[in-house]
Amino acid sequence: MNPKVEIFSQGEEVITGQVADTNAAWLSQQLVSLGFQVSRHTAVGDKMADLIGLLKEIASRADCCICSGGLGPTSDDLTAEAVAQAFNLPLQFDEVALQQISGYFARRNIAMPEVNRKQAMLPQGATRIDNEWGTAPGFCLQYQHCWFVFLPGVPFEMQHLFTETVRPDLEGRFSLQPEKLVIIKTWGIGESALQAHVNQIEIPAAVTVSYRAGVDENQTKLLFPHDYPPEATSILVQQVAAQIGDAVFAIDGLDKTAGDLVSVIADLLNQKSQTLAVIESASQGLIAAKCIGHDWLVSSSYNQKLSRLNQSEADLINTAKRLGRELQKSCAATFALVQFYDGSEQAFADKNQTITLCSVLLTEQGFCQQSKTVAGTLQRKQNQAALYALDLLRRFLQQKESLCPYYD
Amino acid sequence: MNPKVEIFSQGEEVITGQVADTNAAWLSQQLVSLGFQVSRHTAVGDKMADLIGLLKEIASRADCCICSGGLGPTSDDLTAEAVAQAFNLPLQFDEVALQQISGYFARRNIAMPEVNRKQAMLPQGATRIDNEWGTAPGFCLQYQHCWFVFLPGVPFEMQHLFTETVRPDLEGRFSLQPEKLVIIKTWGIGESALQAHVNQIEIPAAVTVSYRAGVDENQTKLLFPHDYPPEATSILVQQVAAQIGDAVFAIDGLDKTAGDLVSVIADLLNQKSQTLAVIESASQGLIAAKCIGHDWLVSSSYNQKLSRLNQSEADLINTAKRLGRELQKSCAATFALVQFYDGSEQAFADKNQTITLCSVLLTEQGFCQQSKTVAGTLQRKQNQAALYALDLLRRFLQQKESLCPYYD
Repeated sequence: MNPKVEIFSQGEEVITGQVADTNAAWLSQQLVSLGFQVSRHTAVGDKMADLIGLLKEIASRADCCICSGGLGPTSDDLTAEAVAQAFNLPLQFDEVALQQISGYFARRNIAMPEVNRKQAMLPQGATRIDNEWGTAPGFCLQYQHCWFVFLPGVPFEMQHLFTETVRPDLEGRFSLQPEKLVIIKTWGIGESALQAHVNQIEIPAAVTVSYRAGVDENQTKLLFPHDYPPEATSILVQQVAAQIGDAVFAIDGLDKTAGDLVSVIADLLNQKSQTLAVIESASQGLIAAKCIGHDWLVSSSYNQKLSRLNQSEADLINTAKRLGRELQKSCAATFALVQFYDGSEQAFADKNQTITLCSVLLTEQGFCQQSKTVAGTLQRKQNQAALYALDLLRRFLQQKESLCPYYD
Repeated sequence: MNPKVEIFSQGEEVITGQVADTNAAWLSQQLVSLGFQVSRHTAVGDKMADLIGLLKEIASRADCCICSGGLGPTSDDLTAEAVAQAFNLPLQFDEVALQQISGYFARRNIAMPEVNRKQAMLPQGATRIDNEWGTAPGFCLQYQHCWFVFLPGVPFEMQHLFTETVRPDLEGRFSLQPEKLVIIKTWGIGESALQAHVNQIEIPAAVTVSYRAGVDENQTKLLFPHDYPPEATSILVQQVAAQIGDAVFAIDGLDKTAGDLVSVIADLLNQKSQTLAVIESASQGLIAAKCIGHDWLVSSSYNQKLSRLNQSEADLINTAKRLGRELQKSCAATFALVQFYDGSEQAFADKNQTITLCSVLLTEQGFCQQSKTVAGTLQRKQNQAALYALDLLRRFLQQKESLCPYYD
């Protein structure tokens, strides 16, 4: 059984929603990869009674707790005092901590403000965690069954202290057996359809399956115990991916991390030094924007007039083929991708109405096309338009059977 | 005393750190603005015992609880069942919910998968919250002293259900005395510069000032007690805004909500039926993408060759003027906006190197221009490029003095 860890975040800016708690997410990823079982995240503000109550709660539930925030110099930074009161470990002055804090200011030619002296007071028996990246030292201590680690809330200080001191310490302190996570990434297939596919396969009881629906991809996640045989892992993953079919654009965690849809396309285009030119309509710039940093995108354009041709879908496809072929030649691009839609402007803007998104891909030998009906807000339709168009290119590059290319 | 609310997030993707809990942050902002005191955020995964335990805990502590996640159709979506067990309210089939779910699929011409039937099972006595944006209906119920609201975890569905149903219901159900929040929105000025400006003004002790640095705008937030006189509020806000200067593009919360930079531009262009055509370089499609749904954007283009002219900044500005003038004529657009940059591709891609972003705006009478040096990741530079270009147009439309227009 993997040790149970909780994440504790302290700060009014978190509790009032001024910032999302990205520290909790970052720490959780680290702890999961180490082999911990993350059981709970809790955030509270700067009320002493809340902090004390929460520390006692966690001590009774978890094997380990990583806390961030509340170590600053100001009066609303209460964590050390809360620990002292909750666990009856009076604050004691740490001479070395004060030298480090005053050294931090000295290196910047600033006189240390008197308030920072407070940061050198640590609970009795705590081990100091040196902080070269800011003024607040962290600290750690055992209370009853739980190992508590306290880190500053500034993300880059917290990450440095965790990576360089806390992580190696935890690896020595706990007996950890990390599970192996494999993620099958898909576009154009819903969560319930994914589940229906996966249900066709017999999944061993030791393997946990879960799903995650995102804006840019849907994921099927397989979690294997640390001692699951690698060959059996690989066979099961391939079996599930084959069952889901051509919607799978990448598998992360087997031997590599493929990244998102654009990264997968980038790998395929770069292998053959191929290039792409794009005409956008419903996606209105978003295909180009998603391809930032990639050399193979040579041009893209959006023109309101082309988005409002009021032609039948068949005529639109012919127009798209003609425009795409011209673009492909004028840009000397390997591929031209034309993204357009069939539907009124009103239907496009109305979240309750659907439009038909069409993509035509001009290749070196011919073309292929795909249409899809989508509903939702303008922004959702725009994003789906960009992704369905890019996915048409991905399917062609991966030579998926569900795609029927036509030859000129 | 304002009622105490807790935020409860359910999902393995949150607890394992695959996503930051942005739902908790969004809900907290909403609840603070309504007049609630947010006391705690908690996230747990999909373990039934954890869910049941947490529901009981919250019922004993809070006046209200907003829960998101765990209402999906798959086997790891346990929230309704956990509520049923925790509060002894057996799940009951809701005929209307099933009609809505099957209607959702019918409108998309998809047969409803059998697993989605589960989403029509609600705890006894719960009030259904209709969901037109997805398949999972929300629900709410009183248990002991606490009013519980359960919403789907997909952010855009959650936000719609909260805004359109939950928020008005909470306003009727609780006696709330919200403080008045006024947000002064700026682009192109940093948090510490904002603070230096505001420090020039004497802020009454009853008013709380805070700052928020965002990706698309920086905010100066003034929080007034619920009984603060409206005239005094207005005078102080205008004083602070004047001190900050031309970087202020909108003020939210005085008498209206202006929205983001694009919404402000949209209002100004629509008043005079003016139109815009764009050439993008570092922003690579993002200006067009941000203007989705606005009629005044008539065209935009990105061309890799134009992004790599290797000219001096002065020559680039002349090239931009010529291309912009041609575009303005060919599209019959009121304005042409040309976004380009000075710097190597390598500097663009390297987060530690800077590039100079330049924008040229062609108007009916002449032109104006602005340059800005930026560092950071590719994505950050891309976003800054789009926003600095749009902000040039905003300053021209608002006739800001910091801008010096030139006449042909």
